[in-house]
Amino acid sequence: MAKIAPLSGFPELLPAARVVEREVIASLAHTFELHGFANIETRVVEPLDRLAKGGEVDKEIYVLRRLHAAADEDAGVGLHFDLTVPFARYVLEHAGHLEFPFRRFQIQPAWRGERPQEGRYRQFTQADVDIVGRDRLSFHHDIEVMRVMVDALDALPIPPVSFQFNNRKLIQGFYRGLGLPDVTAAIRTIDKLDKLPAERVAELLVSDAGATPEQAQRCLELATIRVPDTSFVERVRALGVEDELLDEGLAELAAVVEGCAAGEHRHVTVEANLRIARGLDYYTGTVVEIFMAGYERLKSVGGGGRYDALATDGRTTYPGVGVSFGVSRTLIPLLADGVLAGSRPVPSAVLVAVTNEESRTQSDVIATALRARDIPCEVAPAAQKFGKQIRDAERRGIPYVWFSNADGGHEVKDIRSGEQVAADPATWAPPEEDLRPQVISNEETTP
Amino acid sequence: MAKIAPLSGFPELLPAARVVEREVIASLAHTFELHGFANIETRVVEPLDRLAKGGEVDKEIYVLRRLHAAADEDAGVGLHFDLTVPFARYVLEHAGHLEFPFRRFQIQPAWRGERPQEGRYRQFTQADVDIVGRDRLSFHHDIEVMRVMVDALDALPIPPVSFQFNNRKLIQGFYRGLGLPDVTAAIRTIDKLDKLPAERVAELLVSDAGATPEQAQRCLELATIRVPDTSFVERVRALGVEDELLDEGLAELAAVVEGCAAGEHRHVTVEANLRIARGLDYYTGTVVEIFMAGYERLKSVGGGGRYDALATDGRTTYPGVGVSFGVSRTLIPLLADGVLAGSRPVPSAVLVAVTNEESRTQSDVIATALRARDIPCEVAPAAQKFGKQIRDAERRGIPYVWFSNADGGHEVKDIRSGEQVAADPATWAPPEEDLRPQVISNEETTP
Repeated sequence: MAKIAPLSGFPELLPAARVVEREVIASLAHTFELHGFANIETRVVEPLDRLAKGGEVDKEIYVLRRLHAAADEDAGVGLHFDLTVPFARYVLEHAGHLEFPFRRFQIQPAWRGERPQEGRYRQFTQADVDIVGRDRLSFHHDIEVMRVMVDALDALPIPPVSFQFNNRKLIQGFYRGLGLPDVTAAIRTIDKLDKLPAERVAELLVSDAGATPEQAQRCLELATIRVPDTSFVERVRALGVEDELLDEGLAELAAVVEGCAAGEHRHVTVEANLRIARGLDYYTGTVVEIFMAGYERLKSVGGGGRYDALATDGRTTYPGVGVSFGVSRTLIPLLADGVLAGSRPVPSAVLVAVTNEESRTQSDVIATALRARDIPCEVAPAAQKFGKQIRDAERRGIPYVWFSNADGGHEVKDIRSGEQVAADPATWAPPEEDLRPQVISNEETTP
Repeated sequence: MAKIAPLSGFPELLPAARVVEREVIASLAHTFELHGFANIETRVVEPLDRLAKGGEVDKEIYVLRRLHAAADEDAGVGLHFDLTVPFARYVLEHAGHLEFPFRRFQIQPAWRGERPQEGRYRQFTQADVDIVGRDRLSFHHDIEVMRVMVDALDALPIPPVSFQFNNRKLIQGFYRGLGLPDVTAAIRTIDKLDKLPAERVAELLVSDAGATPEQAQRCLELATIRVPDTSFVERVRALGVEDELLDEGLAELAAVVEGCAAGEHRHVTVEANLRIARGLDYYTGTVVEIFMAGYERLKSVGGGGRYDALATDGRTTYPGVGVSFGVSRTLIPLLADGVLAGSRPVPSAVLVAVTNEESRTQSDVIATALRARDIPCEVAPAAQKFGKQIRDAERRGIPYVWFSNADGGHEVKDIRSGEQVAADPATWAPPEEDLRPQVISNEETTP
């Protein structure tokens, strides 16, 4: 069998990097649970008709077929490409067993058959929090769910993160108040501001969205408003457009920005950025995109918003609000750049040396005693010379080696300092920071 | 949109059941890490030629195809059907970055397109521990890896579990010493003892494996030996067969049984059961199957063994030993039968009541104070009458409701006892057992 090449778009982590991913996932889950969000996992497949409804992403769906089925006979299911479609289906399928508003978090992989590039993978892990109501869902949940993600990302050992909020009612109300003939086309066009120069977008607003040059100018003026507080309200008012929906959007956005900026944050900042639109049709109020300092090339590392119809079964409609964080999109570049690393690839804090194969059982007894006090350890694989056993521990990142003397005494060596002290397996413990692998954060290496 | 039917073979858990699954997975991971096993996750897809090599399972593989690819043009990859094939590939692909013996655990879903039934699902989660060496792997790792799984399952809140060990060298040596012409055929035939009566198996040994009736009788005698200690050695010796490989197998099996039975176990028992063969060709020494009391109908809930060539790249061979536990196969029936349940479907220990919408921010401040001390809580979704807010908490299983008085004082009510006491958000905490959802084990309901 030949050497194995990696599969493009399916990144895999070595054990030390996986330490980082697990710690990040555990930290996210901890914050989500502090806010009362229940964890669920959905099956990875959904019926094709449910996946394909989104329309714009259907070409990236992976369809399943049993190997020995006929070549053109697929299983009618595909891998989910996000966690929103399966969550909507989960809510519909299990509604009778859920209490609403239902608050859930979900951290799972998703799959898209698109061309792989940095930050875009064919298999990638996402972390989503959503609150979904039955028939109705109060606006204050918008603030609540966004705050949860602010707190969650603030607790992570990643570079500074910026939450950029807008509100679809604000945009729609402004465009309507301005008298634009095709509000939807205008939103789609403004959404191109990060790819095209402003003058070109203004031209497109005229040609594609039926705006006058003066209206196009106003749209651009709205889109350039970007402030870290609620001063955007005054600036929008100064543009002189009057509309009820605009008023509602301004009030909602001000409440979200104020609510999310409140409290002490280590490295999360919050802004109102009035060019954020999020192209997807289903957003109806709050929208957010999340960016990471030094990694603007990844575009957003998360996003979300309010949708008045997350799901519907014809009789009942389930409005929702949620936000998603791209775990793989964020971590894989940070790991590749050395911004984050695991302190060691093994959980073991101690390698129990073996004097000779006849006394292996005695080493096992010591390991058992350490484990009984929650100290991860392993017994040396071979009774080699102690120097060799110490070098093995060093190479694997295990900080301590345990020796048993012929007279029944014990010593433990910190192989970093070389210090070796007498120790009792019933009482000795390593310092807390050596007990488990840690995440090492080198934020200064951020490009 | 119509009501949604579940997808057969793809079970999904409601939040309270998911509490149980997460606790079980966390407990397994904790034990594996105490023994120095590093966690990895592999991508869910493997190249088809790697998946199909196993031969006997290839018809159950799910192949991937991009939705808009031609109908007969698949992506050349399929979903893994176990965690051994991807682990073998991971070892080959990343060998240059791993230290051997490499000890890893992996807890992930796998997929098989077979007909669903109780304990057999199309998507199911497994927990695997393996130790893999480069070129060589000492026998003592057989004992080590089996002990890890003994400890891991002993710590779970499940019914009693039995580890039934055998050794392929023992069987092969016995058959060879007996002079059987086709040892492989004989092993395959003896493996049918759990489906066919002994006389029928004896006939098949004669007709399919070329045994004499006397040899067939001895094979059956070997297969009926089942003891909880090393007394099998004497009983096998009494059958009068001499063979070097048999001697080796007897010594290995005795060491595994002795090593795994040592120490105190809550509900794990260990046996030598000389009819356990495990049909798969790649086992070369220790084999094990795990059964759960009251759930014999599931067949084994786990199994594994020694393979002298887990992986090879032509120049280097990687021998391994490992054991797998069927998380879904075990938990889904236990959850369905009510043997296990989650104590509540939400992480929140406290619902902070809202007096009126104007004072919601004050309730948020209390929630923030509780969360700062790691107490999961949520703020009531609506400022309804307190009686209604209490009933909401009750329905959702949240044990405490927090009230703020107009005078700035606070009270917290245990809604189970009805007791309501003054409380300070900076110091009050619920009892440890109420802090997070617990796994409730009703082992007496085991059928």
